[in-house]
Amino acid sequence: MQTLEVQLGERSYPIFIGESLLAQPDCLLPWIRGRQVLLVSNATVAPLYAAQILKILRDAGLAVADVTLPDGEQFKDWQHLNLIFDALLAARFSRKVTLIALGGGVVGDMTGFAAACYQRGVDFIQIPTTLLSQVDSSVGGKTGINHPLGKNMIGAFQQPRAVLADTSVLRSLPERELSAGLAEVIKYGLIRDLPFLAWLEEHMEGLMARDPALLAEAIRRSCQNKAEVVAADELEQNDVRALLNLGHTFGHAIETGMGYGSWLHGEAVGTGMLMAADLSWREGWLSAADVARVRALLVRAGLPVLPPAGLSADEFLRHMAVDKKNVDGRLRLVLLRSLGDAWVTDTASPQHLRATLEAGAALGMMA
Amino acid sequence: MQTLEVQLGERSYPIFIGESLLAQPDCLLPWIRGRQVLLVSNATVAPLYAAQILKILRDAGLAVADVTLPDGEQFKDWQHLNLIFDALLAARFSRKVTLIALGGGVVGDMTGFAAACYQRGVDFIQIPTTLLSQVDSSVGGKTGINHPLGKNMIGAFQQPRAVLADTSVLRSLPERELSAGLAEVIKYGLIRDLPFLAWLEEHMEGLMARDPALLAEAIRRSCQNKAEVVAADELEQNDVRALLNLGHTFGHAIETGMGYGSWLHGEAVGTGMLMAADLSWREGWLSAADVARVRALLVRAGLPVLPPAGLSADEFLRHMAVDKKNVDGRLRLVLLRSLGDAWVTDTASPQHLRATLEAGAALGMMA
Repeated sequence: MQTLEVQLGERSYPIFIGESLLAQPDCLLPWIRGRQVLLVSNATVAPLYAAQILKILRDAGLAVADVTLPDGEQFKDWQHLNLIFDALLAARFSRKVTLIALGGGVVGDMTGFAAACYQRGVDFIQIPTTLLSQVDSSVGGKTGINHPLGKNMIGAFQQPRAVLADTSVLRSLPERELSAGLAEVIKYGLIRDLPFLAWLEEHMEGLMARDPALLAEAIRRSCQNKAEVVAADELEQNDVRALLNLGHTFGHAIETGMGYGSWLHGEAVGTGMLMAADLSWREGWLSAADVARVRALLVRAGLPVLPPAGLSADEFLRHMAVDKKNVDGRLRLVLLRSLGDAWVTDTASPQHLRATLEAGAALGMMA
Repeated sequence: MQTLEVQLGERSYPIFIGESLLAQPDCLLPWIRGRQVLLVSNATVAPLYAAQILKILRDAGLAVADVTLPDGEQFKDWQHLNLIFDALLAARFSRKVTLIALGGGVVGDMTGFAAACYQRGVDFIQIPTTLLSQVDSSVGGKTGINHPLGKNMIGAFQQPRAVLADTSVLRSLPERELSAGLAEVIKYGLIRDLPFLAWLEEHMEGLMARDPALLAEAIRRSCQNKAEVVAADELEQNDVRALLNLGHTFGHAIETGMGYGSWLHGEAVGTGMLMAADLSWREGWLSAADVARVRALLVRAGLPVLPPAGLSADEFLRHMAVDKKNVDGRLRLVLLRSLGDAWVTDTASPQHLRATLEAGAALGMMA
């Protein structure tokens, strides 16, 4: 088992990474401060892993309740968040309760937001069960739900007491979701850790084969990178944390344009990172070989490298205009000054941007 | 105009108290950091004061939207909170937006909670228009909404950027609401400020006649007391902040037992404080003369001093059992060791408590 500490002053917390953590009471129980626990999961994950966790909690003599949400981004709304509050209040749980999020990013975001709001704030623990949530959403404290007029528009910053990233659960992960998680892993290499990018190039086949030691190392280095970024900018008050959005402005346009659920978030981010690399090449910052290198790694990770054919440049631009990073109507993008060095800028030329959006199938193969 | 600073480190903020503050752009505009403002009010207050504030904002060249909620505690729910999010998103307001709460405690709690959650936290300014909200809910950062299974169960701590307590608006306040506000004013004297209690005894008739200078002084000293308590225990992590709940456990039982809206919150708290004093006398801490003194001041403030006849001791106990202060099923109450000195205790004898609950009409007139 590897341990990583996210340094946030009095809100610091550990991330445990390793095999079969869910079977070990000592990984979970020390992080529960009161006598009451609500386990939140979804209909896909609960049948696989909820029973063993509930047994650990009950054997420890805790008062335990659980709630199972439907699985999917389309249920990340107030109505389903309220199922968590209903369960807490039906059990008459006090502000000493601990919530445990067992599932992917949606379960983590909703459980964390419920923990932020229940009686104005209670403890929660993250047990992320997808690679994406292990390397991304379980670090940093962003929680929330969607509003019909915007994704993640309602939420809070709420740090967990601890995160348990169990690599064993990744064996049951569908192939597409493994690739989607790897997109965010590759992102850390691209934005700030060139040695990690090289390590990923060396071990991508092993990661795709779900080698536990390699997965644990990829998770650790991803979480380490994210933890450093978050420690420098916990509440997203400067542009440091925005670097984590490499590929996301393009990616959100793909997700919104195609309708949520058609592309996985990580898939859209993967293609979005290639578009960001392509634009960075047009701006003269990356070489054609750099862009080809990004493309090749994404392909090996099983990720799409073609934006959806049906999405025109104008539609891209329209969806990109509502990004939270934009200031006073000016589009701001995370781009690459070199591989391993991202920055936020509004200086990219509109002509270059349009060329990237129209490049389609030729992305990363132009030069 | 008087100014009071609530000392909370980087979340410190000023409270301005005085006549006709709403007419002065300089009281409002310096606290708006961006170019976007949403004014939130209710159907009673908006017709009286919204136009002049909107004019100040528009004359300053700001992008302004407004939303009017129905007036009443029964609308302090998710459905109506969502009207605020709808307005923010329809206007495409960014995380640089400032929300302004113009109204009583319900508007303040809902607007503050919306500010806590919109894009994970934006600025807000409180313009409380009732005496109760000026002396209580606008200080301390407690925000939230009700859940069908519990009052204020969903919320956040979110400090405003500034509070404008305009004493002119109190002229339009219904008599019952003035009295309800005075209950919370008297509370500060009882829990920690005996000289203030004596000052209130000296000036109660002038306060009831809405003398602006006396009201401003009462508001200033109330806010000063609350600010000191909140500074000592911002997130309610020890029992300091709980002292503000004098009379509230009894009061909540009255509110719940009679159905919300039948008794005003301040009225229930007033009677609850007399019950707390009565129990403190039975425990041997207060003299009979002390309790009579509390009773006399409440009567002069136009407050009820009889608990509702229809509420039995058993019903009281049942409602009091769900209080947030209780730990491990033990009832914890804010009681008085002497006038001006409250404490939180679970030592009151059940027999004495039952005697207080059954005393009814004889409260404070027993000795």
